[in-house]
Amino acid sequence: MTASASASASASPSHVKVHIPLGPSGYDIHIGSGLLGQASSYAGLPPSAAALIVTNPTVAALYLPPLREALAAHHREVHVVELPDGEAFKDAASLNLIFDALLRHGCDRRTLLYALGGGVVGDIAGFAAATYMRGISFVQVPTTLLAQVDSSVGGKTGINHPLGKNMIGAFHQPLRVVADLATLATLAPREVTAGLAEVIKYGPIADAAFLDWIDARLSDLRAGDLAALAHAVQRSCEIKAAVVAEDERESGLRAILNFGHTFGHAIEAGLGFGAWLHGEAVGCGMVMAADLSARLGLIDPAYAARIAQIVQRAGLPVKAPALGADRYLELMRLDKKSQAGQIRFVVITEPGRAAVREAPDALVRDVIAAHCA
Amino acid sequence: MTASASASASASPSHVKVHIPLGPSGYDIHIGSGLLGQASSYAGLPPSAAALIVTNPTVAALYLPPLREALAAHHREVHVVELPDGEAFKDAASLNLIFDALLRHGCDRRTLLYALGGGVVGDIAGFAAATYMRGISFVQVPTTLLAQVDSSVGGKTGINHPLGKNMIGAFHQPLRVVADLATLATLAPREVTAGLAEVIKYGPIADAAFLDWIDARLSDLRAGDLAALAHAVQRSCEIKAAVVAEDERESGLRAILNFGHTFGHAIEAGLGFGAWLHGEAVGCGMVMAADLSARLGLIDPAYAARIAQIVQRAGLPVKAPALGADRYLELMRLDKKSQAGQIRFVVITEPGRAAVREAPDALVRDVIAAHCA
Repeated sequence: MTASASASASASPSHVKVHIPLGPSGYDIHIGSGLLGQASSYAGLPPSAAALIVTNPTVAALYLPPLREALAAHHREVHVVELPDGEAFKDAASLNLIFDALLRHGCDRRTLLYALGGGVVGDIAGFAAATYMRGISFVQVPTTLLAQVDSSVGGKTGINHPLGKNMIGAFHQPLRVVADLATLATLAPREVTAGLAEVIKYGPIADAAFLDWIDARLSDLRAGDLAALAHAVQRSCEIKAAVVAEDERESGLRAILNFGHTFGHAIEAGLGFGAWLHGEAVGCGMVMAADLSARLGLIDPAYAARIAQIVQRAGLPVKAPALGADRYLELMRLDKKSQAGQIRFVVITEPGRAAVREAPDALVRDVIAAHCA
Repeated sequence: MTASASASASASPSHVKVHIPLGPSGYDIHIGSGLLGQASSYAGLPPSAAALIVTNPTVAALYLPPLREALAAHHREVHVVELPDGEAFKDAASLNLIFDALLRHGCDRRTLLYALGGGVVGDIAGFAAATYMRGISFVQVPTTLLAQVDSSVGGKTGINHPLGKNMIGAFHQPLRVVADLATLATLAPREVTAGLAEVIKYGPIADAAFLDWIDARLSDLRAGDLAALAHAVQRSCEIKAAVVAEDERESGLRAILNFGHTFGHAIEAGLGFGAWLHGEAVGCGMVMAADLSARLGLIDPAYAARIAQIVQRAGLPVKAPALGADRYLELMRLDKKSQAGQIRFVVITEPGRAAVREAPDALVRDVIAAHCA
């Protein structure tokens, strides 16, 4: 796959745009430092009297004032709803807080919803936009590395159910994404590290040269070097855009973006959502999925070891929690990629190429045994 | 608008198919007596090991055994979830019963969901299908006249919110609709009458000749004459199909299907959902909207009076509850068609033609005063 083919990037010193080519649902990701508080970042969106900003208290303390000010140029009324912070609150109760706010303020179908925060805020707010009055428009303003490189592309929205992660949701594309790199400076190191998991992911599945680049710039990325982060965000979005453009509704190719996620979701669900950050679980999950790929004879064990080493150097966990193999298998059978009880894993078939495969339970148990703490 | 142009019907003595032309989301409505319990009604759907029937206890007592038997030919496992019966339960709690059942049975993305019942079951089940794992397929088996002529076409799904009817939802087209006319024989007369409201609606908004036919066959329809009902269901679905095909996402034309619904929803919300049946509120709402059309100078008052007379002869209420004009206006401003606080009414511009218009509050108050009990 030539991942860059269907995503075009126009560069200026401080501001890059990546276009997500989805026909009438296509949109741009604006990437740059300081974009969040600039009124021009929101120019050209459809006129709307009212806006609702969805955020959480942590993010609001830092970025609500500049966003409010920037939006005042575009909307007569700017309302705000704050959701409790954390993956544990990515649930129906938080979703309802948004509906309540929209209805209490008499928001109609033209209301523009802004998701200011990380992946949790983006996923819940996007799902609220997908389902309020059967669909209103929304803008993503992601403030974490994970959200900028992952959830800002592809239109996946949703909430967790007590019996499974992201079980309830919809595909709903934002009108625009404003990815302000300056927000990454206020992230806890653990959050940056968690975001790097999804950046690393794009290498093995789609762009072997990008993995080399990550390998070389890993300490710059961890240190918050803006130029390195800008490239990482841009290239990640380009690769995801190319994959999503070929398969908006995840009927085939798009599933490769879930590399590391089958094991990762089992870790998250098994420990209780929120114990590990999503990116941490994906990091460890990639190590396990790479190992599975090697055990299936698809890649050289040395390539799996290299992925594990990069994951570890990024500061991500490489030892999985000891949930027991039975519990892992049970949780993975609930994965959305499963079909008729058969777990389907994203495996690496060669550096920069991935596919979805089933695997014998015995082999999966070997992988679990090899990687549990 | 030539309403029949984009819907094609193929007739056989006992079985008519109306095609809903929505490109890749297009589907057929099978109309006939006894279809529900015939395995052949479900032939050709995508293969799926598991099915989940969503229904309610009232409908289950009558039609669950024949549907289960018919589906046994197509699915290895057929699960059932029963929702509490009634519009008052078209809420997030009922929706969750479906998610719980899907997850408890380990249902994957290929699971086929069957909505067996009236509009409430269809709307909730359709919304569950729209959002479970970001979308699974579903089949409508409508057992009320209202559901057969209205919710079976167009893919509107959703639930009510304490602050407004159908506020949370999605567009999600079924794979097929199986409209068994025999189920109408077990409907309470009040339910048949409520369904007639939506049948009558199609005349003034799209087909003046159909209103003449309804006028002539009203007593047959009320008496449950199968031939008359077959034509009413078929013609209603054809008209709705033509409108929806031109405007799947309700950006313009499709709003005319809400003739009578702006006043009607205010009646339902003002009295508390469930006090009046939806069709009853729409019937009375059409009388008010027709009067508004006349007061706006769009149609002859005699045509508005004729609509009122047909609504009354159908057994529907023509006197609105005395909620007070202020409350009506407040409730109508919450309508999904409202824009920036301006209520937008569906009005008749000539027999068989409708449009969406704003109206001076004073005129709306006159209409309310003239029709309140």
